[in-house]
Amino acid sequence: MSSGLPTLERSIELFSRLPGVGRKSAQRMVYHLLKEGGREATLLGQGLLALSERIHFCEVCHNLAEEGLCAICQDSKRDHGLICVVEEPVDVLAMERAGAYRGLYHVLGGRLSPMDGIGPDALYLDALLERLQQGGVRELIIATNPTVAGEATAHYITQLAQPLTIDISRLAYGMPMGGELEYLDESTLFQALQGRRGVL
Amino acid sequence: MSSGLPTLERSIELFSRLPGVGRKSAQRMVYHLLKEGGREATLLGQGLLALSERIHFCEVCHNLAEEGLCAICQDSKRDHGLICVVEEPVDVLAMERAGAYRGLYHVLGGRLSPMDGIGPDALYLDALLERLQQGGVRELIIATNPTVAGEATAHYITQLAQPLTIDISRLAYGMPMGGELEYLDESTLFQALQGRRGVL
Repeated sequence: MSSGLPTLERSIELFSRLPGVGRKSAQRMVYHLLKEGGREATLLGQGLLALSERIHFCEVCHNLAEEGLCAICQDSKRDHGLICVVEEPVDVLAMERAGAYRGLYHVLGGRLSPMDGIGPDALYLDALLERLQQGGVRELIIATNPTVAGEATAHYITQLAQPLTIDISRLAYGMPMGGELEYLDESTLFQALQGRRGVL
Repeated sequence: MSSGLPTLERSIELFSRLPGVGRKSAQRMVYHLLKEGGREATLLGQGLLALSERIHFCEVCHNLAEEGLCAICQDSKRDHGLICVVEEPVDVLAMERAGAYRGLYHVLGGRLSPMDGIGPDALYLDALLERLQQGGVRELIIATNPTVAGEATAHYITQLAQPLTIDISRLAYGMPMGGELEYLDESTLFQALQGRRGVL
């Protein structure tokens, strides 16, 4: 059922492209934005245009930034001897949320996926190698996703960085906190067993 | 955990005001919009500004419209002798989706709610009375929500329209299709029983 209003339909279509948003939720969102004379629609429209205009990628790590360097690369209190490689800017946010890491990042801008035509050249891998070759980095922590493509990317990066004499590590695999063993898939359980650690 | 980027935070905050969107989904949506150089953010921003600029309320029924009259009021094939009163434009969409109604609408722009300071003057009730007084309307179908405020509004409209010699009806109460009796609340079951209809 369409409203027959082109601008309305256009907004609904754009909303329904968002992750986790179906046509019905998109419709509800757009109608919500139109309450009170469309004030919220104007605000969100302006906000998004300001966003797409101001947000760039950090020149060093390719995280989101409003200036040349992102806030993390600019922070002299962080450990510049550690680099954590992630796929997307949203992964930086996830790591920062955990609050356990005080080094720098390197955002690849995706993962290797030959099937989709995404080879090494499509990612910021040259830039990573350059950063490592400049020296001063003690450890490279690979935090790509534990998916087929993420693992392939991790493997590729390991090969790439091996000639340099730095430590290379990968985030641990295992049980997600708060999950239940009963519902855990076999491969995670297998990894959790393989990676078990002494408790004494 | 904040990204520390003002434009990003602003967009996340605006998204999280949408119905059914928490801070975490808002974050995911905004990061999604920033992929591929923020192309989607630009599109959605432009779309929403066009929307809030072009969308107005129909001069007759106060449904959403891009011109003076909405598509439904303009449609000469619809039955102009029937008016269905609803609370919000989204309710028109729901009725149209059902596809069972071929008359006109009247959108109130809300429901009576003295607690929130919403009295009769805040709704398009005068405009409704005017439409009814102009003649040509055979039946007024009250389709406000089956909530306390919606019922109060329905009652008020009934009082308002009673002096005019037109039929006044209210959408039926009863079991929602596909629901199960076992999980139905008492008042709905009570209404369903009261409104039972002969099957022969």
